[in-house]
Amino acid sequence: MTEKPISRFAVPSLASLPQDIRARIEGVAEKAGFVPNIFLALAHRPDEFRAFFAYHDALMERESGLSLGEREMIVVATSAANECQYCVVAHGAIVRIRMKNRILADQLVSNYRKADITPRQRAMLDFALKVSLRAQEVEESDFDRLHAHGLSDDDIWDIGAITAFFGMSNRLVNMASIRANEEFFALGR
Amino acid sequence: MTEKPISRFAVPSLASLPQDIRARIEGVAEKAGFVPNIFLALAHRPDEFRAFFAYHDALMERESGLSLGEREMIVVATSAANECQYCVVAHGAIVRIRMKNRILADQLVSNYRKADITPRQRAMLDFALKVSLRAQEVEESDFDRLHAHGLSDDDIWDIGAITAFFGMSNRLVNMASIRANEEFFALGR
Amino acid sequence: MTEKPISRFAVPSLASLPQDIRARIEGVAEKAGFVPNIFLALAHRPDEFRAFFAYHDALMERESGLSLGEREMIVVATSAANECQYCVVAHGAIVRIRMKNRILADQLVSNYRKADITPRQRAMLDFALKVSLRAQEVEESDFDRLHAHGLSDDDIWDIGAITAFFGMSNRLVNMASIRANEEFFALGR
Amino acid sequence: MTEKPISRFAVPSLASLPQDIRARIEGVAEKAGFVPNIFLALAHRPDEFRAFFAYHDALMERESGLSLGEREMIVVATSAANECQYCVVAHGAIVRIRMKNRILADQLVSNYRKADITPRQRAMLDFALKVSLRAQEVEESDFDRLHAHGLSDDDIWDIGAITAFFGMSNRLVNMASIRANEEFFALGR
Amino acid sequence: MTEKPISRFAVPSLASLPQDIRARIEGVAEKAGFVPNIFLALAHRPDEFRAFFAYHDALMERESGLSLGEREMIVVATSAANECQYCVVAHGAIVRIRMKNRILADQLVSNYRKADITPRQRAMLDFALKVSLRAQEVEESDFDRLHAHGLSDDDIWDIGAITAFFGMSNRLVNMASIRANEEFFALGR
Amino acid sequence: MTEKPISRFAVPSLASLPQDIRARIEGVAEKAGFVPNIFLALAHRPDEFRAFFAYHDALMERESGLSLGEREMIVVATSAANECQYCVVAHGAIVRIRMKNRILADQLVSNYRKADITPRQRAMLDFALKVSLRAQEVEESDFDRLHAHGLSDDDIWDIGAITAFFGMSNRLVNMASIRANEEFFALGR
Repeated sequence: MTEKPISRFAVPSLASLPQDIRARIEGVAEKAGFVPNIFLALAHRPDEFRAFFAYHDALMERESGLSLGEREMIVVATSAANECQYCVVAHGAIVRIRMKNRILADQLVSNYRKADITPRQRAMLDFALKVSLRAQEVEESDFDRLHAHGLSDDDIWDIGAITAFFGMSNRLVNMASIRANEEFFALGR
Repeated sequence: MTEKPISRFAVPSLASLPQDIRARIEGVAEKAGFVPNIFLALAHRPDEFRAFFAYHDALMERESGLSLGEREMIVVATSAANECQYCVVAHGAIVRIRMKNRILADQLVSNYRKADITPRQRAMLDFALKVSLRAQEVEESDFDRLHAHGLSDDDIWDIGAITAFFGMSNRLVNMASIRANEEFFALGR
Repeated sequence: MTEKPISRFAVPSLASLPQDIRARIEGVAEKAGFVPNIFLALAHRPDEFRAFFAYHDALMERESGLSLGEREMIVVATSAANECQYCVVAHGAIVRIRMKNRILADQLVSNYRKADITPRQRAMLDFALKVSLRAQEVEESDFDRLHAHGLSDDDIWDIGAITAFFGMSNRLVNMASIRANEEFFALGR
Repeated sequence: MTEKPISRFAVPSLASLPQDIRARIEGVAEKAGFVPNIFLALAHRPDEFRAFFAYHDALMERESGLSLGEREMIVVATSAANECQYCVVAHGAIVRIRMKNRILADQLVSNYRKADITPRQRAMLDFALKVSLRAQEVEESDFDRLHAHGLSDDDIWDIGAITAFFGMSNRLVNMASIRANEEFFALGR
Repeated sequence: MTEKPISRFAVPSLASLPQDIRARIEGVAEKAGFVPNIFLALAHRPDEFRAFFAYHDALMERESGLSLGEREMIVVATSAANECQYCVVAHGAIVRIRMKNRILADQLVSNYRKADITPRQRAMLDFALKVSLRAQEVEESDFDRLHAHGLSDDDIWDIGAITAFFGMSNRLVNMASIRANEEFFALGR
Repeated sequence: MTEKPISRFAVPSLASLPQDIRARIEGVAEKAGFVPNIFLALAHRPDEFRAFFAYHDALMERESGLSLGEREMIVVATSAANECQYCVVAHGAIVRIRMKNRILADQLVSNYRKADITPRQRAMLDFALKVSLRAQEVEESDFDRLHAHGLSDDDIWDIGAITAFFGMSNRLVNMASIRANEEFFALGR
């Protein structure tokens, strides 16, 4: 059993980081009780770090027709398709907490089509997976189906943009073999 | 949130089952504290039920160069590739228990290549995935690589046969939408 | 031209086998005029041998809304998709015999969509191929289409279970390079 | 059981055809004892008919380092990958005749990697399948491997050009649902 | 920056070629102002050269319900799917000239679904791509859709046959790494 | 011929935008002579706009072992694989300008393996395509190959991060059908 490092790339010491980045990391650590490895693994590129989390917050914390938990469901289902271990494990924990549901995340990881979700959530995830795996085939009929479930154009942008953003994150994580913190596995169980 | 039934197909009452099948189910229930749904979902076909579990036991309980836990690792990694929710969840629990490891199963589900495993286990899982996804391309060089890790022909048969058996199970479960019991999700955490 | 062995794995002598397995093999040999290699190739694992053939018989010999020939059609079409030479050749021969049709098996192997079959058989094979190649996407609408052709839930289970069982067999055969007996190629021509 | 027509498109009467095309068809009929349907299905386009068979003959009848039978092996293996029923059945018959081998064609159709062929023929077919399925990835190292088996650049052109030509034929046949004549199935058995 | 040769295979001198082939090449050179490399790369096989261009002309110059420009659109869209650099670049130039449109070709190469085309042309290209990538699944419903756009069976044959012919050409070009002439890139801009 | 709108989603007027976003757009317009549509299509979400372009600049304008032109080559080759019309057309123009090369971009779009590039650039693009299409399979041996071409870990991060960022951009563009400005097609020809 070989335990893997936090990242394939160099991880800077907290002390060496610019003040704003250190502050962000310390804030997260205080709230979560530990430092999620993605923060450490991206910190060697401060400008990319700042843009990454600014983008993340813009999508995940804005007012939206999608609940906070539904947005995390998108992350888990599309990250599973991209086989991104960190994203699946970390955002699976957030799904458990935000949805107050101990089993939904594991259902989504293995096969979202068989998960205990509403028809509207099924349509949301079908679209997310299409954007993730074959966005070049998106058509007006995809929008029609989502509208029929009461999702607005703005909600659809959120689904697609969250999918696209975490598609980027999935590729960074897999390239760098960023390790999921042990703490995530038990959170919300 | 719609909770799905145990199976898309009819599930017989325990009382209506042949004696040997009822006994097997009651034995499992006593040991596990609940009846795993796969037993109920297959029970409408007693002969298939008997053959299924006889085959399962022949592979999973025999003496082998693979440990009991390693065999479950194969089940989890290949069932993830086949998106079989029941198998991933149920055998993920068994991996946690058998390997005395709270995180390995979730690592295997999301991306076995990034899991904390030995090189020998990596070779074992690479072969299992090849048998699962493109067995028609298996070649002598695949055996050479496994031999180099100390795996015997007999061990290789076990890897392939477990993969093939659970490939069958994965397809049955997905066809019938067999639901993973809630109990599995928390086991061994 | 290199003639390949019966199996990549060791093949035990008939004399060394447990009595019940030897009896089964001798029974087949008497009926067919030769010993199909699958019996010899599985015999090194008596418990697996027994479960395999018990499962086979439970599916292929039971009363069903599918005729014996239709069940073999499923085997041929799905084994072709899995590129399983033994299964295609052996069960192609059985299709010729059971369907009293010299050309159907070869049509199914190359492209079942262009074969001389009924619309009901086409729906049956479309479902079998879906279970074989992407069972994770099976949905209620698949059942609706089959019901529209007069197939019952029990028939659908048969289609899926036969597909799943031979998907296992296909993988075992390809892993072990089990050779199709020469006798099969000419049977029923 | 629905027997399908010769072609999805109109099939002209022999009497209505240009003299040279009628002569070619009558010549084939005399030699084979029947008219292979591909000749009838292409005849509605005389110029395409002439170019098609001129191309065919240029590749299949020229002097080459590949035997006539080996060229037919390429046709069968690549047509199987393209699921072209007519091509698989018709050229399977020719393989049986040219190679004086009753089983080789059926081996190639189901999985050429498990067929009784020489290492040189295996390399030949591996390259043919690569040209058929992902020609965009052909590289100098592919040529090196073929050279190592004694195949010249001219032989390699033949492998690729035959594959490409029958890739065209496979698509025409599948688009037009051209039916394989019953006579082919038994030829050379 | 390594500039690649015209072809991976030998290219004969013009002087060494049969008279009819030299005449064809000189005719093209006069009209285009340069010799497109495909003519030189195929010339080492005079019979194949003749059949190739006879086939080309039969499809691309005949009277048809598809305009000359639409036929070139099919070539560009399907050659892009096959990643054939020569075909994409050379026929992209012809699309620009025939359609008197400076941007359409580049739109088709990157994603024909997002190009400025009519619904009839979209249906035409959807069918072309299906024939190119999975002709084995062509069904009567594909014809229905094309008929609804006013395309006749004869037009549909043209779409499929052009697709099939250039599928052959794409594979030859990729096998032989035939280089696109620099002149093509700027033509019609 | 239907000319498509700038975006499937609403596009705000310049006047309605926050000052910093308007300033950025006006700066680009002054430099390029037109407003690239991506700026207009993202402007309805100011926070996402800011993060997107901050991320873009962090990757594309930093000091790196990859030249500015090489970074654009990565964008073109991976956007072609994702069939992103806007990205292929816009960044193709930038490749022409930055590399002072009129043909390279079109070579990369159709098949980067056949483009006039150095072995180091080939390794760079092979890795970019792997991160784009199957990042989950990235392994230490991928790093070894890039190191052998003199690329540092920092350069490799750039390759992967640019690929990941534009993979996000490709999905946004395809979801929103963002139209490539006509000006891009002729730039640098």
